[in-house]
Amino acid sequence: MAAALAAASDGHRGANPLVGATILAPDGRTVTGRHLGAGTPHAEVDAIAAARRNGFDLTASTLLVTLEPCAHTGRTGPCTQAILDAGIPDVVFALPDTTALAGGGGQILAEAGVRVRSGLGAAESAQLNARWRTAVGSGRPFVTAKIAQSLDGKVAAADRTSRWITSAASREHSHRLRGTVDAILVGTGTVAADDPRLSARDADGELLDSQPIPVVMGMSELPADSHLAADPATVHLRTRDVDTALRDLHDRGVRHLLVEGGPQLLGEFFTADAVDEVLCYQAPVLLGDGLPSVAGLGVSTLAEAVSLVPDDTAIPAVSVLGPDVLLHFATGGSQ
Amino acid sequence: MAAALAAASDGHRGANPLVGATILAPDGRTVTGRHLGAGTPHAEVDAIAAARRNGFDLTASTLLVTLEPCAHTGRTGPCTQAILDAGIPDVVFALPDTTALAGGGGQILAEAGVRVRSGLGAAESAQLNARWRTAVGSGRPFVTAKIAQSLDGKVAAADRTSRWITSAASREHSHRLRGTVDAILVGTGTVAADDPRLSARDADGELLDSQPIPVVMGMSELPADSHLAADPATVHLRTRDVDTALRDLHDRGVRHLLVEGGPQLLGEFFTADAVDEVLCYQAPVLLGDGLPSVAGLGVSTLAEAVSLVPDDTAIPAVSVLGPDVLLHFATGGSQ
Repeated sequence: MAAALAAASDGHRGANPLVGATILAPDGRTVTGRHLGAGTPHAEVDAIAAARRNGFDLTASTLLVTLEPCAHTGRTGPCTQAILDAGIPDVVFALPDTTALAGGGGQILAEAGVRVRSGLGAAESAQLNARWRTAVGSGRPFVTAKIAQSLDGKVAAADRTSRWITSAASREHSHRLRGTVDAILVGTGTVAADDPRLSARDADGELLDSQPIPVVMGMSELPADSHLAADPATVHLRTRDVDTALRDLHDRGVRHLLVEGGPQLLGEFFTADAVDEVLCYQAPVLLGDGLPSVAGLGVSTLAEAVSLVPDDTAIPAVSVLGPDVLLHFATGGSQ
Repeated sequence: MAAALAAASDGHRGANPLVGATILAPDGRTVTGRHLGAGTPHAEVDAIAAARRNGFDLTASTLLVTLEPCAHTGRTGPCTQAILDAGIPDVVFALPDTTALAGGGGQILAEAGVRVRSGLGAAESAQLNARWRTAVGSGRPFVTAKIAQSLDGKVAAADRTSRWITSAASREHSHRLRGTVDAILVGTGTVAADDPRLSARDADGELLDSQPIPVVMGMSELPADSHLAADPATVHLRTRDVDTALRDLHDRGVRHLLVEGGPQLLGEFFTADAVDEVLCYQAPVLLGDGLPSVAGLGVSTLAEAVSLVPDDTAIPAVSVLGPDVLLHFATGGSQ
């Protein structure tokens, strides 16, 4: 189960919780699998595929998984069926799946004659997804704030030039990130200043298969000639209130929201305590003057600073991307 | 020699160049040594001590070192004597020591009957110390700029509170850094605002053995009740010109200068192209408003940004210090 938990924490955080699985063969060998994001195989199916590649006798193997196998056909088939098809006789899961949609998998397996046990590693599995569960359980998306800044915390030079502060490696990473979220949010000021597309592209500029919903928040009209005004997928939330915007997006089915700026909008999200994780791409340049990465926090003294927590969940707390660093934080005290 | 070069790059950059040494025993075993800063054993002596601890037969071993062994009694004894005392019969060095003070060691060894060869790894050794040589060769100290900032590039909150933005681990690291330089420079504005001591202390607040010269630059008088005004060691350079200040410090024997701020002074050093390396301690907090880490760069558009280069020489380009990261850069294109 420790290996399954480790695999889960290497997985992909998005619209689904972090889940990992281990298969233990009768000869003592193990393989692990993990869930890598919406639309990709669940951890159990990933582990079963790895076991087959390694010639495991699945009819004598044990499956350990950090969340109860789903009994639900969503974008992928139910894991219970995959387990039964593989002939795995023994399943241990950490946490029950309490959702009406996907729960009950353990009972289905038990009724089909599989030995089913639960609870091993339950606390660790819950901890791994605590923040995700809190967000989704409170009826709002999990919110990732993205910052792409200079070493001295500027997202644009004094004349607002910002293409590109960060390296090609960072931009490619952030486009892959875009391809895994349900929606990307910017403020109307960013649309007016930068005219972004909010699309997820590969290194060659080609659109990735999975495209997030482009969302703009604010009372101003979008410039008529902007890319987002021309995009029929664009959602314009005519509000300045963070909670209202998040409830609206949750109602539209958005479970993972990426907030890209500008600085004022990011400041409003931090002030509303509505940020769950922060990804900060930081380039080795100094701009001196320019646009600060986060504005309007209302912090006047050090004791009021917004505290972040370096976070190794899903991605490392610190990674090197070409000349840049990518810093990954959770907000608040507990992950 | 590759091992010696690697050992050198793990060493300590300061008033002396980076030097590493390898000793190859007749049975094929090797040990390495490195120079860890002014006043500590040179790389050859460090390697000889390691070889003795490992029971090497030094009278049948080969010493490989990235710089010609010194023939000079400075803060430590001459390496040539240590090599002769150890009875090492075979020495290979990469680069000749061209200084009048310490050069000629190879000839001394050869005249004493040691087989001496040179040139192996010379280009790599020169590259390792290119920036150090440029600085010292041009009659100014090697300049390290230190920044201790929030994630969004602030060194103090709006009310100028700054104790402490960074963690205890970062502050301890920066105090060890202080203990390895010849002098620390701040502007008069920083003295007035923060009243620093510029002393090097351990985690318990005790003074380290090696203390840098405290230096203040600027035309204003120091507040009479400030710690630095009361410190007889304080040097007050009454100039706003970076080159004048650096020449003055070089004349006073300063070979490694740490510039700690404030933001305006750092900006002037960057603008004067007088920074050789940057150490940026960065804490996981957001301040929004506050004092920017570097000011007055005169950069108005992204193309004019000051470019830094992540640098793994002497210390890693990226390290984790408790919740903080320490980022290490060289300036300009070549290290």
